[in-house]
Order: sequence, then structure tokens, then C-alpha cells
Amino acid sequence: MTTTTSGDTAPHAASATPADSVFVQACRGEPVPHTPVWFMRQAGRSLPEYRELRSGTGMLQACRQPELVAEITLQPVRRHGVDAAILFSDIVVPVAAAGVELDIVAGTGPVIADPVRSAADVGRLRRISLDDVGFVDEAVRLLVAELGATPLIGFAGAPFTLASYLVEGGPSRTHARTKALMYADPETWHALCARLAEITVEFLRVQVAAGASAVQLFDSWAGALSEADYRRYVLPHSVTVLHSLADAGVPRIHFGVGTAELLGAMAEAGADVVGVDWRTPLDAATVRVGPDRSVQGNLDPCLLLAPWPVIETEVRRVLAEGLAAPGHVFNLGHGVLPETDPEVLTRVVELVHTVSAR
Amino acid sequence: MTTTTSGDTAPHAASATPADSVFVQACRGEPVPHTPVWFMRQAGRSLPEYRELRSGTGMLQACRQPELVAEITLQPVRRHGVDAAILFSDIVVPVAAAGVELDIVAGTGPVIADPVRSAADVGRLRRISLDDVGFVDEAVRLLVAELGATPLIGFAGAPFTLASYLVEGGPSRTHARTKALMYADPETWHALCARLAEITVEFLRVQVAAGASAVQLFDSWAGALSEADYRRYVLPHSVTVLHSLADAGVPRIHFGVGTAELLGAMAEAGADVVGVDWRTPLDAATVRVGPDRSVQGNLDPCLLLAPWPVIETEVRRVLAEGLAAPGHVFNLGHGVLPETDPEVLTRVVELVHTVSAR
Repeated sequence: MTTTTSGDTAPHAASATPADSVFVQACRGEPVPHTPVWFMRQAGRSLPEYRELRSGTGMLQACRQPELVAEITLQPVRRHGVDAAILFSDIVVPVAAAGVELDIVAGTGPVIADPVRSAADVGRLRRISLDDVGFVDEAVRLLVAELGATPLIGFAGAPFTLASYLVEGGPSRTHARTKALMYADPETWHALCARLAEITVEFLRVQVAAGASAVQLFDSWAGALSEADYRRYVLPHSVTVLHSLADAGVPRIHFGVGTAELLGAMAEAGADVVGVDWRTPLDAATVRVGPDRSVQGNLDPCLLLAPWPVIETEVRRVLAEGLAAPGHVFNLGHGVLPETDPEVLTRVVELVHTVSAR
Repeated sequence: MTTTTSGDTAPHAASATPADSVFVQACRGEPVPHTPVWFMRQAGRSLPEYRELRSGTGMLQACRQPELVAEITLQPVRRHGVDAAILFSDIVVPVAAAGVELDIVAGTGPVIADPVRSAADVGRLRRISLDDVGFVDEAVRLLVAELGATPLIGFAGAPFTLASYLVEGGPSRTHARTKALMYADPETWHALCARLAEITVEFLRVQVAAGASAVQLFDSWAGALSEADYRRYVLPHSVTVLHSLADAGVPRIHFGVGTAELLGAMAEAGADVVGVDWRTPLDAATVRVGPDRSVQGNLDPCLLLAPWPVIETEVRRVLAEGLAAPGHVFNLGHGVLPETDPEVLTRVVELVHTVSAR
């Protein structure tokens, strides 16, 4: 098994270990030979080999099979020659491990049998330990052995986004029940988020201990909040997660969608890298997150459906805007859309490497 | 029929005509005795009397019955004593009038039988005239007669948001097909938006001619776009609509959701009032839209599910932040949620009037 289809030409092949890879260096704001690139949801429905592997296996079931997780995680690395792998998982995997009865329904997303809406409901949410997520430990170990010099990014959802799934009982456009709980019963809200922060820290510690070279904390739905609400109800718990991992020695990436007004506050949560969606240009984002942090992003995933000349122009623009930050990890502004042509992703990787070569 | 339940005490009862109402004065940035207030989706599912009236009548069917439209539009004016009514309609009503075969499905939204994805599809989209929307003309005339001094706001969707429904075939989270069309075939895209702008102008002209005292152009989904894409693909068409109504003599309001990065560009489209969602504080929004425009908004609709003391604090905050603008129309940052207690809306109207009394 080779880690990339273009292993002999990929610039990152020069790295001896994941810890001094181009990706990790860019996260730390150190000089790099080229801008590293990976894609959120690079492992997933855009790849025919993924759809074939997943056929007949439910999402939650798939996330609990280490060899399947490893193979799915490796597919985009082999195919596209991206600079990092990200653990294939789902945001609700650790809460399922904490005793929440749930399923991930194709076309819908997570469905929680008994939504969490009271202090008693929060009390049912256990802490987790390595034993609860042994399958993740095993998947990461398999991956690190296979990936060689390519770094693996650990994956977890942030307390607010996890809380939203638990309180709503599934995906929500408005997060109305979630916000209603935080406004009406802040004590229960903070107890819920504190427990979710503990679960998230443990979930990420297991991944780092098994060899992950970075972590990304997805607060995908934080953009639904005003900055004042974010600071009052959410930031303290994201701080807990990111600060608890400060001694882990790996870069921490923090990402959300629609966070134009939140980038400064999200940076304060303590990540080394702040993920930015396509609405905010990276040079403007850099001003908001401050000069000490790298940025990640931010091509509109819909742009990958455009003709190649349009994509090329926009990739070059993103790379130019990314120069304003001390470090830039090229990515999309949100996950790869299932209808994306995988060959376009491969071309984008090549273009990013070529254009950014220094 | 009385126009408000509190007609004898409502501060706006002092106005002699809608044209010199507190609402219209605030839109124009003129001094007002108190901040006017209305709610997007104030006529709708939060009201039991609405659910009763609509029972057994499909949405599109309801929008085409002038007496029903008038009654639904009046319900929140009577119940809450708001400072303005807004025509009860649906964003796709004018495109249905232009020959697009569609239905509005409860729980889903508009469903377009044959989505618009080619120049030939655009060619099928007719211009509209008064004859195509006579039911709207009639509803507005009925309303103006009933409303007395309370102004009626005309209602229409902006070209981008309408185009998204037509191209996607219904509501979309990503607007991926819409963006793909604009990137791949800008000529067809601009032809589509130009035709939608013509339809929208006519739809609003009919409402103004029948007596509407203001218009609101809803570009609800514009926040999905980067500023660069908004300026290239959308702004020119919104400019067409708003400039075509410059001689109508009524304030023009322009609203979208998630528009933190777009407020300056949306203001350039030419509205007198820019609607702001809850993510951007009104004082910050005022800096972006410039000193010549009023603002409208921006309480998070989810806040109406909070305990009253939390609501009161937040209403006072929004009123204080609104003082930064030359004029402020109090509203939510998006539509009233169906699960909102209507009595809370009434209390918010009273609070806004009391706190802002000058």
C-alpha cells in the first residue's frame, strides 16, 4: 500500500515524520516549501471507492470498525495526494460511546432516541474512557502505521454543536430548542456542555495518544449564535477542550461555518489554527483572529462544481489571500459536496502545490 | 373591524395617514416619537387564528384569495398592535404568476415541477402584468381600506433567492446547483435574474399602486454567497429592482440572513432600510451600511422562546444599539418561529413602544 498515488512527486514526500510535515509546520506558522492542502469530508461520498466500501454498512457501524475506518481514511490520501489525512468518524460517535442511544440515518443525520433537555438527562451522560472508544484507538494506530510521513488529523465535535444534536434530537436549521435551553436554564446548559467538553477531551486524547499529529475541533453550527451568546454560553467550554490539549504537543484547529462575527472569539478559544468559511476572505479573517494564529480554508465547496478555469482563478485568489496569515492550510470553507467530481479535487491539490511552491 | 386591539392607546394611532406614520418616518431616518416595530412572519403559524383560517386551504391557494389574504394580514395588527402590516404572500407567488408550475408543500416549501437550468428554461419565464396578479391588487386595496393609518408593507423575493428556488427545484441548504449555474453559464444566470428582476418590479409596483406604503425585498439566502460573488452575480439585479422603485415614493427595505460580510454591498443596492439578522449588532451594521440608511432588526427569533426577563434585557439592548442608526425599525433577525407564544410578541411590541418613547 502506498500512501499517495503521486508519492514520488508530492512535495511533502520530503518530510521524514508527520511531526515535521509541511501540514504541521503550516499549522505552527513556520516557513513551508508549499501551502499544504486537505479537504473537509475528503473521505466520503464524493469517492466511488468509498460508496462501494460503505455499501450495506450503517454509518455508526462503519465508524466502529477500525480496519474499515482506516481504509476509508486512506482513500483520499492515495487518490488525491493531500498533505493530511483526517480520521473518518462522525460527530456523534463519542456521545454514543457515552451512553446516548442514537442512530445516524442516511439522508437525515443523527437521530437521538431521547433528546437531552433536563438536568436529569444530562446526568445520564457518562464520562468516557479508552475502553469506550477502543475502536478509535485501534483505527488511529492502523492509520499511523500506514500513513508514514503523512500526518493524521484527529476529529471531534465541539460542545455547542454536540449539544445542539442532543437537545434538538437531530439536525436543526434554527437550533431553537438548544437556544431556548441555554436562555431558560443556563445551569443545565453549562452542565451539559461541561460534560460534553470532558467527553471531547478524552475522545481527542485517545486519538493523540495513538499517534494523531493534529486535532480539529468542529463547532460546525456555532455560526448560528451572536457573538455575545457565543461568549456567554459556548466559548468557556471550547476553551476547556482546547486548553486541555495544550500539553498534547499537536496543533489544534478550530472550525465553524458562518462565523464572520465570531472569528475573534473563536481564536480566543485557544486553537493554533482557525478554520474560515468562504464568506470571509482569509486576509480579513487574519485581522480578526490575530497575528499569532494560522488560518485554514476557504474555497466555497460549490466552486468545485464550476468549470476548471473558474476554479483555478479562485484557488489562486485563496492562496494569495492566505499569504496574509503566518501559516495557511488550504481547504474548502465547508465539507466536500457528495456530487463533487473527485478528479477535480486531485487537480486542486496539484494546483495548490504548484502555485504555492516557494 | 378595528385595526388594532389597542387602537386607543397605541402610540402610532396619532398618525393621520400611513405616509406620515412612525414606521415610514423611521424608514426615512426622520425623528419619531418611538421606535416602530413589526415582525417578519407576524402573519402566520404562531397565531391560532391563522392556523384556524388556513385549515384545509393550501398555501398557494390561500395567497390567491384576496379576502383571506387581507384577513391573515390584519390578524397580527389587531392582536399585537404592531406599527406595520406586511402583505401575506409567498416568495414564489410572482413566479407562479409568470407561468412556472409549482406547489408549496407543507413542511417542505416550494417545489418546482421543472427546475430552471438552461437558456430555454429561462425563455419559458413570462413577464407579468397586473392581470396575472389581480388577486394581489385586490388584497392590497382591501387592506389599505381596513388599515387606516397603519402602513402596509409590500412583499417580494429578490432575484437571487427566487433564482435559487427555481434552479434547485425547491429549498436548498447549499444552493450548489444555483452557484454551479452562475459559475458555468453566467449568460443564462444573468438572463434568469434579469427576468426575475422584471417580474419582481412589476409585482411590487402593483402593490404600491394599490396603496402599499413601503416595500420589503427579501434576499433571504444571499448570505450563502461571498461578497465577491454577490457583487458579480447578484447585486446588479437587486439594483435594478430597487432603482426601478425609486420613483414610487415609498421606503424600500432590503433584507437577508447571514449577511455579516454583505451589509455594505446590500446597502449599495439602493434600499432606504437594510434588514440585519441577529449575528451582527445594529451599531456595527450601521457602520457597514453607511450613515444615510436606516436599519431594521434584529432580535434572534429563538430569543422569544426565552423567559421574559431575558427577552426584556435583549430587547433593550437591540433598542440601544439601534440608536446608532439614523432610523431604526425594530424587528426580529428572521421570521417568527411557529412555536412562538403570540402573547410574548404582544409584550415585545408594548416594551419597544415604552422603552423607546421619546
